[in-house]
Amino acid sequence: MRLSHLMLPDIEQAFAADPEAIRELFEDLHDEDVADIVESAPPDLAPELLAALVPAQAADVLECIEPHRQVDLVQRLGVQRAFPIIDEMASDDRADFVAELEHDFAEALLSAMDDAAEADVRALVRWEEGTVGSVMSTEALTVPVEMSVAEVIDRVRTVGQEAETVYYVFVVAGSDKLVGVVSLRDLILCDPGEAVASIMAEDVKSIGPEADQEDAADLIKHYDLIALPVVDDAHRLRGLVTIDDLVDVIEEEATEDMHRMAAIQPLEDSYFGTGFWTFVKKRAPWLVALFVGGQFTANAMRYYDDVIAEAAVLVLFLPLIISSGGNSGSQSATIIIRALAVGEVNLSQAGRVLARELAMGLVLGGMLAGIGALRALTGTGGGLVALTLGATLVTVVTLGTVLGSMLPILLERLGLDPAVSSTPFIATLVDLLGIVTYLSMARAILL
Amino acid sequence: MRLSHLMLPDIEQAFAADPEAIRELFEDLHDEDVADIVESAPPDLAPELLAALVPAQAADVLECIEPHRQVDLVQRLGVQRAFPIIDEMASDDRADFVAELEHDFAEALLSAMDDAAEADVRALVRWEEGTVGSVMSTEALTVPVEMSVAEVIDRVRTVGQEAETVYYVFVVAGSDKLVGVVSLRDLILCDPGEAVASIMAEDVKSIGPEADQEDAADLIKHYDLIALPVVDDAHRLRGLVTIDDLVDVIEEEATEDMHRMAAIQPLEDSYFGTGFWTFVKKRAPWLVALFVGGQFTANAMRYYDDVIAEAAVLVLFLPLIISSGGNSGSQSATIIIRALAVGEVNLSQAGRVLARELAMGLVLGGMLAGIGALRALTGTGGGLVALTLGATLVTVVTLGTVLGSMLPILLERLGLDPAVSSTPFIATLVDLLGIVTYLSMARAILL
Repeated sequence: MRLSHLMLPDIEQAFAADPEAIRELFEDLHDEDVADIVESAPPDLAPELLAALVPAQAADVLECIEPHRQVDLVQRLGVQRAFPIIDEMASDDRADFVAELEHDFAEALLSAMDDAAEADVRALVRWEEGTVGSVMSTEALTVPVEMSVAEVIDRVRTVGQEAETVYYVFVVAGSDKLVGVVSLRDLILCDPGEAVASIMAEDVKSIGPEADQEDAADLIKHYDLIALPVVDDAHRLRGLVTIDDLVDVIEEEATEDMHRMAAIQPLEDSYFGTGFWTFVKKRAPWLVALFVGGQFTANAMRYYDDVIAEAAVLVLFLPLIISSGGNSGSQSATIIIRALAVGEVNLSQAGRVLARELAMGLVLGGMLAGIGALRALTGTGGGLVALTLGATLVTVVTLGTVLGSMLPILLERLGLDPAVSSTPFIATLVDLLGIVTYLSMARAILL
Repeated sequence: MRLSHLMLPDIEQAFAADPEAIRELFEDLHDEDVADIVESAPPDLAPELLAALVPAQAADVLECIEPHRQVDLVQRLGVQRAFPIIDEMASDDRADFVAELEHDFAEALLSAMDDAAEADVRALVRWEEGTVGSVMSTEALTVPVEMSVAEVIDRVRTVGQEAETVYYVFVVAGSDKLVGVVSLRDLILCDPGEAVASIMAEDVKSIGPEADQEDAADLIKHYDLIALPVVDDAHRLRGLVTIDDLVDVIEEEATEDMHRMAAIQPLEDSYFGTGFWTFVKKRAPWLVALFVGGQFTANAMRYYDDVIAEAAVLVLFLPLIISSGGNSGSQSATIIIRALAVGEVNLSQAGRVLARELAMGLVLGGMLAGIGALRALTGTGGGLVALTLGATLVTVVTLGTVLGSMLPILLERLGLDPAVSSTPFIATLVDLLGIVTYLSMARAILL
């Protein structure tokens, strides 16, 4: 049971009696819990609750709410009551939020905001989805390299309230050129009289705003960072990506890969946030492509109509054989696509992967062939049907593991996303090869 | 090109000439970069490089190396040279590492370590894989509630070097009972004379060590925390889970779900870290189960041998039909399994999902039916074949989307992991229903 369900009736009463008391009550709660309450409140009460908060907390609360709910809330508030809250939002969340608004409302809100905030939003919204620029915030705390530790601490005290993450202070020289970084921990541990230049780490990892957000995630993960500075070509500090943004990036990328592997074009929004016809557009193209591609299976079978006519019993096992190849193929494809994504396997290891999956296919195929042949011997078929079935299963399962593992590696080598070798695509390819193998073997053995 | 490939030849030379110089060189590099160098060094040089570092850095470097490489390195170093390094490792990494060692070597190492460290490792290794206890570290920085801000800062200065993450200081009362938390940022921003009790946040989110690590991940994500305290039943602080551990948890859980969805039992290790026969054991059971289950398709087809004999042209389209059902089913299953995992959809929304996926199946199935019927009309079939094909495709694709979306929700409701409704399983079920639908329709329409 969520906190909001317990508290909401009391809050409605309290708000009706004394709106000021709500502000004090909410100040002691986590922003996320306040957000839950606001989200569960009736549509007319929710914006009033938000407006009752001090703007800084209202902004933090707003950041915890889903984009399309944010838009609804803020439009109910109206530009005049909304802009002080929007002003206080973290730059990255604010830009994402403004990008969700209708054009006219966004323009009205932007012109109500102060010039610096407006410029900041306009600079951030132009970065394409998926780039570092689209997830970075611009509140990095910077100090000139000439400062002492004591002066840096003073600076943290003055501006620290505003900066989203002041676990790191970035040290700049000249025109904002990034030359070092100190953590708050370093500042506390060091003698206040020392120069910041003497305690800062100079080997600062950084990334460009146009880079892929996944690369930022990899750097943060690899170097166990809390925040990664974003610099332009002249190595001037432009913003930072924090580890909590990264968590979202990692989840999004995993979701995208899963969707691609199931032959769905990546969604931009949540399940219920995605419209019905958008969903159709994300699902239909691959489904139709696989259907059209699958017609080759019908053509292939036509070529073997003599076999089918002579040994109708074979047809009974056809779905079983092609699904076995498809299943082993999707196992291998999933394992390799994920291993490539998390960096467990790299392209130079293609040979080792091939050897392993070839052996794996022979072992797994051997098992299924044993069961299948036994089934044929004890059931409808005879010795020759059992032989056909066994030989086909070994071949098809091995084709599945080899194609399933090699296709993602090939795509990665070509610079494409290996997850696009979606498992249904591999299954369709293996279907076709399975039919050809099965019926060719049958023609050779039985006719 | 990795840094290690560029630097390794120079380092080998430098180490031969002056081992001391290496220590100084490595101190200026990121631990992860040093780890890359050590991992790429020849087997006899690698442990010597590690031994040349100060133990604290050697420990940090060791933490960046894969578990089975760690074991190899440390066994080459021997107990006497290894234990000062192991002593310095972060408690969570140290416990994971010791758990990887052979029993005798682990015992020798543990008895060489100091008593507190030994007890710490023994307490941590007993937590089961997947629990909060198995990923927590025990270096939380705690201060008594009576302290002033200035005293807390002094404490941070004294012990801060050792604590893994000192972005938060935990405030305890009586016998280690957790009563509040302050961030380093709060400490810097406040007046040193104030009591820590007056600036600490009292609404501290925490979790028990026996809880699922995924729940810890959800709390950290939901409340945007850097670290989450772990407390026992008496609310005594036992450790903390940091956001960088969470990143690993999120990746692991996504990998597990992907593997389950492809009918693979979750792996404990990386692709190359998993032995060949372990892999067979993870892949064979589901593959065999699906194969045995798939035999129902053969039985179903036998029941329709009259239809197959009369209208052999139908057989040509069979693989196409069953793969269309399977593809639409795995699209829906993947979308819903992932939406459940990231919390976009919850069980109370089953009705809305059903309505949506039913409509989706009719639309997508209608498209494929149109293409299929056109194909039959212009090709081999006739009007009746086209009708059979179209009606079957609409039905099968709709069955796919409905079963694919409802089965994961049903499993979640039963308290099982929805990812276990692996997409091949759904595909096999849809195969069977597809065959029955197709051949029943054919019997009704064509015979």
